[in-house]
Amino acid sequence: MKIDQLIAQIREKKTFLCVGLDTDLDKIPEHLLKEEDPIFAFNKAIIDATHQFCVAYKPNIAFYEAYGLKGWKALERTMEYLNTEYPEVFTIADAKRGDIGNTSTRYAKAFFETLNFDSITIAPYMGKDSVEPFLAFKDKHTILLALTSNQGAFDFQTKQVNGQELYKEVLATSKSYKNAENLMYVVGATKASYLSEVRQIVPESFLLVPGVGAQGGNLQEVCKYGITKDIGLLVNSSRGILYASQGLDFAKMAGDKAKSIQKEMEIELNKLDV
Amino acid sequence: MKIDQLIAQIREKKTFLCVGLDTDLDKIPEHLLKEEDPIFAFNKAIIDATHQFCVAYKPNIAFYEAYGLKGWKALERTMEYLNTEYPEVFTIADAKRGDIGNTSTRYAKAFFETLNFDSITIAPYMGKDSVEPFLAFKDKHTILLALTSNQGAFDFQTKQVNGQELYKEVLATSKSYKNAENLMYVVGATKASYLSEVRQIVPESFLLVPGVGAQGGNLQEVCKYGITKDIGLLVNSSRGILYASQGLDFAKMAGDKAKSIQKEMEIELNKLDV
Repeated sequence: MKIDQLIAQIREKKTFLCVGLDTDLDKIPEHLLKEEDPIFAFNKAIIDATHQFCVAYKPNIAFYEAYGLKGWKALERTMEYLNTEYPEVFTIADAKRGDIGNTSTRYAKAFFETLNFDSITIAPYMGKDSVEPFLAFKDKHTILLALTSNQGAFDFQTKQVNGQELYKEVLATSKSYKNAENLMYVVGATKASYLSEVRQIVPESFLLVPGVGAQGGNLQEVCKYGITKDIGLLVNSSRGILYASQGLDFAKMAGDKAKSIQKEMEIELNKLDV
Repeated sequence: MKIDQLIAQIREKKTFLCVGLDTDLDKIPEHLLKEEDPIFAFNKAIIDATHQFCVAYKPNIAFYEAYGLKGWKALERTMEYLNTEYPEVFTIADAKRGDIGNTSTRYAKAFFETLNFDSITIAPYMGKDSVEPFLAFKDKHTILLALTSNQGAFDFQTKQVNGQELYKEVLATSKSYKNAENLMYVVGATKASYLSEVRQIVPESFLLVPGVGAQGGNLQEVCKYGITKDIGLLVNSSRGILYASQGLDFAKMAGDKAKSIQKEMEIELNKLDV
């Protein structure tokens, strides 16, 4: 998907919500466990109930891999469903991959071609030749981890390198990578004030912001420091939407939760006068 | 597997070779493509021909994911075969995963439980709470990326942090993680002299050394700087063994290649007088 299509979708739907599909068989409503493919059945219901209120879906690949073949099959079916029924929606493989060149190319093919995702999250530790194979795919997007929202982010990401924090070094260095225009970045929302510093280095890039909601972020803060004239933000919510209810009404409740976030986002977008 | 079992196997077989299973349908012998599961058929033949000369196998997960369900199935069959026929062999999921706590736990279950690997490679960028979920598994091993053998290693890994290179900061910091005794480290062999610096920080940990052979490393150099009284090294070779021949004799040629590396390793082990 071209970035312009994502921006147009945000303007049309008045939302920049990404729904994280962290589908967990221990948490989905019990009645779905009788289905032949409970993971897909849950995802389908959630997608049908929330697609009007969001612009992106982000399956967390670990949740699918943990179920082996069954999980991989459910992921394939989810992507087929999204690409067929809601092709306007942006899809993110939250995979946090990264390896030497020829191996990164394999991962890129797995997610961009076999599964037909629009984007994938990537860890930067192995540097340029681990990232560029993903950037080489036209109209696909590589979302590099910069500053994550977990406690361990302080182990290395905020350490000083060349007089600035490592995550800033990652942002600055990655701008010189070939096809850098296909880069987006993960920036955790528990540190919303960091977003203004991020914007000094990447003023226009899209940022994927996890952790609004369950991880304690605040939407107004995120927009204050991170929004651009073309929005430039995808804000993710996973558990708050998926598990809004564990009863028969789970899909309706998920839709209501997504709608309430969309309404908050609409207020922020109206401030931009887009 | 307990670390003592790995050490005993190294002493018995007189080798610390790891065979990387980077199985590529474009490179395996053509006659195998007629098999119902060519990836597994190739892996089985390679394993049968090389197991006497190595102590570990390391499937590169990207190569399996790239083939979707078919690849995942072949990986499952390969692990079942290894665990049934050669349970003494150490298995490494070369996956380079890493995510926030509950997601890392999912990846750990996928590789340690569903697929029953003995170990997995992990990227350190997200810090402590992304690594510790892997360390929590008893008799399973977490192989943290420290210094990789690709060009991009110089983007961040060798940058100065707290007066030392980032990869040394990773080594030093990780020693304080809970269950750190389950840690091993990836250290690239194209920079063998760095191994003596690594040994100052982690004098006894096992190091997984990729890149001897195709990536230009030198076994004698690696041993000179990296070997310990309990060996502490697993040296990987992938393409040099797997694709020693692309003809009908591929398995025999792979076995011969593995044997010649084993002979070199035996010379190094004899120097230790173990």
